[in-house]
Amino acid sequence: MTFKHITSRDNVLFKQLKKLAESSRERSKQNQTLLDGVHLVNAYIDQFGMPELLIIAEGQSSNEVNGLIQHLVDIPTVMFTTLMFAELTPVASPTGILALIKIPQLDVPEAPDFVLMLEDIQDPGNLGGILRTAAAADVQAVYLSTGCTDAWSPKALRGGQGAQFVLPIIERADLMAEVQQFKGQTLATAMDGESLYEQSLTEPTAFLIGNEGAGLSTTLLQAASQKVHIPMSGKVESLNAATAAAICLFERARQAAKL
Amino acid sequence: MTFKHITSRDNVLFKQLKKLAESSRERSKQNQTLLDGVHLVNAYIDQFGMPELLIIAEGQSSNEVNGLIQHLVDIPTVMFTTLMFAELTPVASPTGILALIKIPQLDVPEAPDFVLMLEDIQDPGNLGGILRTAAAADVQAVYLSTGCTDAWSPKALRGGQGAQFVLPIIERADLMAEVQQFKGQTLATAMDGESLYEQSLTEPTAFLIGNEGAGLSTTLLQAASQKVHIPMSGKVESLNAATAAAICLFERARQAAKL
Repeated sequence: MTFKHITSRDNVLFKQLKKLAESSRERSKQNQTLLDGVHLVNAYIDQFGMPELLIIAEGQSSNEVNGLIQHLVDIPTVMFTTLMFAELTPVASPTGILALIKIPQLDVPEAPDFVLMLEDIQDPGNLGGILRTAAAADVQAVYLSTGCTDAWSPKALRGGQGAQFVLPIIERADLMAEVQQFKGQTLATAMDGESLYEQSLTEPTAFLIGNEGAGLSTTLLQAASQKVHIPMSGKVESLNAATAAAICLFERARQAAKL
Repeated sequence: MTFKHITSRDNVLFKQLKKLAESSRERSKQNQTLLDGVHLVNAYIDQFGMPELLIIAEGQSSNEVNGLIQHLVDIPTVMFTTLMFAELTPVASPTGILALIKIPQLDVPEAPDFVLMLEDIQDPGNLGGILRTAAAADVQAVYLSTGCTDAWSPKALRGGQGAQFVLPIIERADLMAEVQQFKGQTLATAMDGESLYEQSLTEPTAFLIGNEGAGLSTTLLQAASQKVHIPMSGKVESLNAATAAAICLFERARQAAKL
């Protein structure tokens, strides 16, 4: 196979892709992002079909990547020098393949009964991990406040391991409005809340989880129907946001499975 | 206050500290490590008393750091240039204070009834996060296989947020021997295990959690008294190791609290 081989950093396509890799604003404007690695590309294809473009690194020799390229022989493919390719990926040891995709938008069910609302989560890896946990717990929609990091950044996608393709995600959401409109209980995690384990979680439930440092904003805490906390030893002050989310979401999953 | 002000990268102390910051082997050999930031330094002092040395960055002007330095006026303190200081910390925006400490060793209780065994967890931030979760769930001892990353690296300490100071951690453990000696059930997480939620976790329990990519080794899976899995939607293939640990440990904490 031969591909268009691009070796100049002045190349227009390279410059476009670099912007997309680095800028949340650009991703949102173009409604496109880059997927890194065979696993993510395959997860995308399973749900949505073909990516718009494949980008490979010169000299990459992974059997997995070569297999994927052969399978996707009809997709436009370009090859960059190793150094240029590395500029497009967030990982220290690049996998050798990227795909350019349209950012998909999954529909939120009419009356979702299991929802997660995240306020100002700033670390992309953490956000990705929370989305992965939410997909595993069968959450039906995730709302992200304007202060949250972008769910479609390369690092968030890496943390999500494909969760972004199966989970309706609403970015730049007005969480106050969503709390008020949600038809069910809205549970805000807070140190002074009631025990999570004393809540009945089988009715429609939305969990609200805040920024690791600051916790939830006062307005959201007040708007929620109930404050809950995870009982823990006095040995540490708190759990990180991703851990708190995992425990809350899977307690709901546990209770719901018993119905 | 004036401190010994070190501006040369050839300085012997600087070179020693840099080795300690970068090398797991050196930390283990010297039985020392570096703590980054006021929160960790205070958490250490609460448990063990004074650090051996404070290291501050030239030009740092945080009130929090200055308060701590004034409080610890009897501790030897050195000041490095901003650039040299930055070489000693793993974080992009350094807090401006480091402390050199002896690595503490907490005693494992005689017959622990809640134990976590980790095999080959390689990401220091993940390991730190798991230790923090374990401390919150009141785990009594954590055993790390030889293939695990070092629990006392700057990044693991940052992820642990002080968990390393309250939790007995046994590094380079022979997990096979520990599984065989543990007086209670040993539960290995595995895709083909029984539901976590169907297990009675109120008896003495050890959880075994494996490397994210590879899972637990076959020998450990076979040695464990039971394989368990966390029921999840078919939308994602797996949970990451830190999430799986959080759900297992807090399910045990939930059941134990009901006794």
